[in-house]
Amino acid sequence: MDHLKRLYESVKEEALNDYLKFLSFPSISSDLNHVADVKACCNWLSEWLRRKGFDVEVWETEGHPAIFATCLKAGEEKPTLLLYGHYDVQPVDPLEEWASPPFTPTLNGETIVARGAQDNKGQCFYTVSALAALLKENGSLPINIKLLVEGEEEIGSPSLPAWLEKKKKALQADYVAVVDVGMKDAKTPAVTLGARGILTMDIHVRGTEGDLHSGSHGGLAYNPIHALIQILDAARDKKSGKILIPGFYDDIRPLTPSERSQVDLSAREEAPGGEKEFPPAERVGLRPTFEVNGILGGYTGSGFKTVIPAKASAKASCRLVPDQDPQKVGAAVKAFLEAKAPEGVTVKVDLHPGTGRAVRAHADSKIAQAFKQAYRELFDVEPAFLLEGGSIPITTKLAEASGGEPVFVGLGLADDRIHAPNERFSLDRFRNGFLSIARTLEILDGQTP
Amino acid sequence: MDHLKRLYESVKEEALNDYLKFLSFPSISSDLNHVADVKACCNWLSEWLRRKGFDVEVWETEGHPAIFATCLKAGEEKPTLLLYGHYDVQPVDPLEEWASPPFTPTLNGETIVARGAQDNKGQCFYTVSALAALLKENGSLPINIKLLVEGEEEIGSPSLPAWLEKKKKALQADYVAVVDVGMKDAKTPAVTLGARGILTMDIHVRGTEGDLHSGSHGGLAYNPIHALIQILDAARDKKSGKILIPGFYDDIRPLTPSERSQVDLSAREEAPGGEKEFPPAERVGLRPTFEVNGILGGYTGSGFKTVIPAKASAKASCRLVPDQDPQKVGAAVKAFLEAKAPEGVTVKVDLHPGTGRAVRAHADSKIAQAFKQAYRELFDVEPAFLLEGGSIPITTKLAEASGGEPVFVGLGLADDRIHAPNERFSLDRFRNGFLSIARTLEILDGQTP
Repeated sequence: MDHLKRLYESVKEEALNDYLKFLSFPSISSDLNHVADVKACCNWLSEWLRRKGFDVEVWETEGHPAIFATCLKAGEEKPTLLLYGHYDVQPVDPLEEWASPPFTPTLNGETIVARGAQDNKGQCFYTVSALAALLKENGSLPINIKLLVEGEEEIGSPSLPAWLEKKKKALQADYVAVVDVGMKDAKTPAVTLGARGILTMDIHVRGTEGDLHSGSHGGLAYNPIHALIQILDAARDKKSGKILIPGFYDDIRPLTPSERSQVDLSAREEAPGGEKEFPPAERVGLRPTFEVNGILGGYTGSGFKTVIPAKASAKASCRLVPDQDPQKVGAAVKAFLEAKAPEGVTVKVDLHPGTGRAVRAHADSKIAQAFKQAYRELFDVEPAFLLEGGSIPITTKLAEASGGEPVFVGLGLADDRIHAPNERFSLDRFRNGFLSIARTLEILDGQTP
Repeated sequence: MDHLKRLYESVKEEALNDYLKFLSFPSISSDLNHVADVKACCNWLSEWLRRKGFDVEVWETEGHPAIFATCLKAGEEKPTLLLYGHYDVQPVDPLEEWASPPFTPTLNGETIVARGAQDNKGQCFYTVSALAALLKENGSLPINIKLLVEGEEEIGSPSLPAWLEKKKKALQADYVAVVDVGMKDAKTPAVTLGARGILTMDIHVRGTEGDLHSGSHGGLAYNPIHALIQILDAARDKKSGKILIPGFYDDIRPLTPSERSQVDLSAREEAPGGEKEFPPAERVGLRPTFEVNGILGGYTGSGFKTVIPAKASAKASCRLVPDQDPQKVGAAVKAFLEAKAPEGVTVKVDLHPGTGRAVRAHADSKIAQAFKQAYRELFDVEPAFLLEGGSIPITTKLAEASGGEPVFVGLGLADDRIHAPNERFSLDRFRNGFLSIARTLEILDGQTP
């Protein structure tokens, strides 16, 4: 690994500077006010990749563009690895809880604080930095590399599937590595074999035409907030934490005994949420959820307003596990909630496009074993095989289109505050990320340490 | 009534112009950003009253000031009527639902649209306009008048009680008329004998230190929105509409058979909210409520954010009936909600100051009968005796401090959209309000039609 460490030292200053520049684009994919910022971020990264010697295509999808970059100089006899990341980020609110502006990357000791510092700009950028450094040093890469960096991951990749279908031939690869997950803990790296699927929705409850005075109408009108509370609460059993929506747990594929023996399901700290009957690690890795991510109704400003609002709404999402079908689960949730509408209000559930099925990869695949070896050499500890609770919705489609065996890797930690204020990533993990990517390429090329 | 109609015509133009000016002050008492606007509104009205010949004191309370104006020229042998109104208004959001700016009074046909157009600037201003016109015409008023116009009604009059105590002597009156309620319907005026009490609160639910990613933590963390939904839903029985908080219905004084025979409890339209076991008119007039007026948690912007928020909150209020004690009911609600906190979250209920007990006046009092007669003469129809669902929290204390018999009057209609966007009041009701106040003064002075 020493030659790679020297390589990192030689490019470190430029790589970190460019990483900070990458973080400064407010590429919030879910916010229509940031369309131009997303585009600018895409332009900057695609130019960067071109400058470093990659063949770059920008896919002008119906939504935010995706970057497809390749370096196929290794030759046809060498394997091809498709690497995936995303340059879009989550919204930043509550803005007032950030200690520094989210798009002004700030060095706090050995930690970079910014939206996207980890998810996924940090992990994306150590990946491209490693590829660029190896390419510059050797004039080629040990194996063939295809790189897909999209701009709609945080909104469920609605536009990409059509392009994966269209670009099927260009995407052909032996392996797919999604560099967007994390370590088991600060000392133990991990290769993640599974990620949960996802579906999201808006729930709209409507009562009267306009807001009402809670004095004149209190006891007469059916308050839409009461209705929303009632239908959402009806979906969950207080005691067991189970979701009470009929069909919600259908089709779940359990782990085989062999899978169970390889996957790390060691105890996590006791957790108050979710299904009580399962240990915490199984709740997050093997069980679906129905989570209310936002709720809004009536007067929420300073002071008080004695109003019965005309409407109330919520945003909710389900995390799914193999073999749940997002369409089927979404339909069950929608039917359940809409049928619970009490007299006097209407309930409408809008299921969003951009759902994703859960993914589960094989522990003994060459790609899983290669990353495991690279991490083992780098951290000098046996890496774990994990199941991720989060979702990378595009992964199933990516594996199908490319024909490659998928795996999830990355050096995220639970307290990186991704999706939350003061998101952060440490410089030592940026370096280790760089080294792990570079070393994995060598391992897939059959190079010994 | 003809001489009063002529009097109105002679002052109409100036009165309406001044009414529009009064509406242009954004005197939102609940919003700290509008403290100066509230003050400016108070200054304008107190100057107006001085100019019209009233002796005016501005009470610089701990909160927004109150105006106390008197005209005691009728002489000691004449009765004294204390009139009450308020110059503060409710917040205006959702601002985007207003067809015209809320503090730019807009004439739409024969209707004035503005925040406060009815509640209470409209009703307040026809009252002072009638007093001022009579005073100008006759150099005095038929009876002695004391007028209290406060600036904190919409936040529960927190500062006024101390001043009522302090100004007890100056407030002495035979009758108290709160000019802040409405008609039975567009054709039937009404004298209102009762109003509900009120208490308000903020409910804060706190989970983890910061927001969490719903993928990595979904199934582990206890989502504060789920907890808030759960504890609020536990307070209400879905089927019966009954509040399940122990002690919530204690101490309610039922109507006596005599009261029941005089009070209009005729059927209102079937209503989907409140306690199913009671007819709609009784639900709003004779039963307490627990209403969620606002709820907020997690991501509520455009797009989607898969977050488990650190906190969620709600604003709630109770309408109370005789003889419920706001402190006792508040303590019961707080204890119930806080005790329901599931493991993993904390629940804190902040009860607000500025509560008010319910009021119920006598149908056969001289003041109730005087307004009934004035309304009968003016509308040529038998007025109703009503019970109001809203609250004028200060009324009990006003009656106690002044020693006067209270009554609620006014010409509001259910579709005036008070507390809601596009609040409005019609010019003909402004005129009839003027006439009813002027005529009531004559009746209390023993003048025949």
